[in-house]
Amino acid sequence: MAKFGKDSKGKGYRVAYTKGDIEGRTWFIDQMKKAGLKVTIDFAGNIIGKRKGKDASLKPIAFGSHIDMVPDGGNYDGCVGSVSGLEIMEILNENNIVTNHPLELIIFSDEEGSLLGSMALAGHLNQERLKVVSQSGLTISEGIKAIGGNPDSISSVIRKKGDLSAFIELHVEQGGILDRENIQIGVVEGIVGIEDWEVTVEGFANHAGTTPMNLRHDALLSAAKLIIAVNEVITGREGRQVGTVGKISAQPGAYNVVPGKVILGLEIRDLSHDNIWELFREIEKRAAAIAASSGTTITFNNQSLGATPALTNKSIQDKIVQSAKALGFTYKYMQSGAGHDSQNMALITPIGMIFVPSLGGISHSPKEFTKAIDMANGANVLLQTILALDKE
Amino acid sequence: MAKFGKDSKGKGYRVAYTKGDIEGRTWFIDQMKKAGLKVTIDFAGNIIGKRKGKDASLKPIAFGSHIDMVPDGGNYDGCVGSVSGLEIMEILNENNIVTNHPLELIIFSDEEGSLLGSMALAGHLNQERLKVVSQSGLTISEGIKAIGGNPDSISSVIRKKGDLSAFIELHVEQGGILDRENIQIGVVEGIVGIEDWEVTVEGFANHAGTTPMNLRHDALLSAAKLIIAVNEVITGREGRQVGTVGKISAQPGAYNVVPGKVILGLEIRDLSHDNIWELFREIEKRAAAIAASSGTTITFNNQSLGATPALTNKSIQDKIVQSAKALGFTYKYMQSGAGHDSQNMALITPIGMIFVPSLGGISHSPKEFTKAIDMANGANVLLQTILALDKE
Repeated sequence: MAKFGKDSKGKGYRVAYTKGDIEGRTWFIDQMKKAGLKVTIDFAGNIIGKRKGKDASLKPIAFGSHIDMVPDGGNYDGCVGSVSGLEIMEILNENNIVTNHPLELIIFSDEEGSLLGSMALAGHLNQERLKVVSQSGLTISEGIKAIGGNPDSISSVIRKKGDLSAFIELHVEQGGILDRENIQIGVVEGIVGIEDWEVTVEGFANHAGTTPMNLRHDALLSAAKLIIAVNEVITGREGRQVGTVGKISAQPGAYNVVPGKVILGLEIRDLSHDNIWELFREIEKRAAAIAASSGTTITFNNQSLGATPALTNKSIQDKIVQSAKALGFTYKYMQSGAGHDSQNMALITPIGMIFVPSLGGISHSPKEFTKAIDMANGANVLLQTILALDKE
Repeated sequence: MAKFGKDSKGKGYRVAYTKGDIEGRTWFIDQMKKAGLKVTIDFAGNIIGKRKGKDASLKPIAFGSHIDMVPDGGNYDGCVGSVSGLEIMEILNENNIVTNHPLELIIFSDEEGSLLGSMALAGHLNQERLKVVSQSGLTISEGIKAIGGNPDSISSVIRKKGDLSAFIELHVEQGGILDRENIQIGVVEGIVGIEDWEVTVEGFANHAGTTPMNLRHDALLSAAKLIIAVNEVITGREGRQVGTVGKISAQPGAYNVVPGKVILGLEIRDLSHDNIWELFREIEKRAAAIAASSGTTITFNNQSLGATPALTNKSIQDKIVQSAKALGFTYKYMQSGAGHDSQNMALITPIGMIFVPSLGGISHSPKEFTKAIDMANGANVLLQTILALDKE
């Protein structure tokens, strides 16, 4: 897959809807056909490879991931789950295994841009989103056409609840936990919810030479206290929640002027929606105290673009654990801090997610790396989990 | 003066070298001539109005300020000292007073841009600076030509040590101390030195969803601790030093990425050069501790554009105090946190500075305001100080 999509500097550029993406998809479709799958491109541009089961009345077990990447991204994010799905189809062929359920290998379109393909499948794609200009330079609508979809009929791709038996995704962790703890398999309990706030700190801009320290209303000093408060609130209770101030700007922004206004970006992620908002209320309280003691004001504006947490199915978690144990692999329950197509699929079917280690936790970078043995382990756990589900 | 120089929106725009500046200068030169002064424009564009004394062998007592302004500036910064100088010449005429020393009213060119005129007079103008594009859009060299100077011969304007008896500047405070404490006259002990540092905090950029709190090297969290440490160090000892972090940027700067690199602007001002550097060393120590405890690095890069502190002459300070006392005014010893032409003049002659209140401490703003009575008080103290110096 890494052969397809390079920019002029040789950096990975298999960005959704670009030439590299299309070349990668063409190759992948060809491999699916060679594996005997019945391949269709749905109107959202998802590639779906079907393999018949013994009982056509059973709902398909689906699995897969994506093959598009962020600009200058790595070779493992998405591809590990996609290529493993293909490998599983070939292994079943080689061993003359026909499952009871039909199987579907789904390669979602435009995962990195906005989880577009899975959003369309799960039926919560907003038509407005089709007008957004994607990283490729094309609008999403134009992009979908470029990869063989049909944006005008996109609502017809919706799968209803119960149309699938399950969806399982194998993916690289994109964090450093498995690598650091030397564990082979991550059993994902859920994909975290995300809330973002734009935070405005207002003080009073003044001459940094003539304004004595005790007469200042320094917005950046207040912002600094808030950044520390965010860290204290997030780390102050048990749990795996994360909170980040990743953006900051100060106005007017000169060596010789006390900043009058600072704008921050605050993000909180957790598996529990309630926990996210409890943490936020605590941060708000701390902010009110900082504002009062410093003669500044601090206001929070929720960006309403957040993702709700998506929990994986307990019974599928158990099957992943049993498969890992049977294969002799170490495993750990964990959450996914990053978003995945599975979170959309959770709206219509029980989901499971399997993680394999990312070296040093590096992600969305050409330095992203997962060892071949770890990918093989993940593919084996995925296969055994599918077979266990098929026996039910 | 406020009539001259407006931009298209009617905002004050008597920026050095622009049409407004030239119109203001023309009017001012005219007033000087009406007051009987012998007016010359030196090669740096300074306007110098000379009044003969009884003893031509005595070195002139000089006073003055500037009439250029920052974009959208106020009507008092510079003009109070300039117009008061003119008023003093007229008062001497009306009262048929001829001083022993010759007198010089100096209106410095391009104060707001870079203290250019006084820098040329004091002989430390770097030729490179002439190539810099000023706020007017012209290079400083072109600007000097536009106001009647001659950049090619600018070194001939240098005054040597001893060429003047003294230089005294009346100016609005540009801070809120006199106004808040309801004091009429500020006796300036000196103009603070300024040192700027660009501070680079380096951590490690990482996914804000998949990177647990305890595995982060968050450059912005370290920067926040440093901003607070700067404030604690500066306010932690007695004195009037100020320290400001006025600039900040975080990279990559997204809601969902732990910042890997933060760049800050740090400025320290004080009357004592040694104190500035002692405070900086303390900040450096605090930074080293923050860096060590957070897995980040913090480096300081001095911008070498700083101004050295300029102390006013004790004997002139005494004469300002005696004049204020004799006129029944309240007074306070203070420092100037802002830069002034006087700091350049201090390199070649004893200097004095008199401050009058700025309402609310507002400066470099159309809201800048000083009451007429306060300006009159300042002009009277300036006159009496000149007469006291003349008697020596």
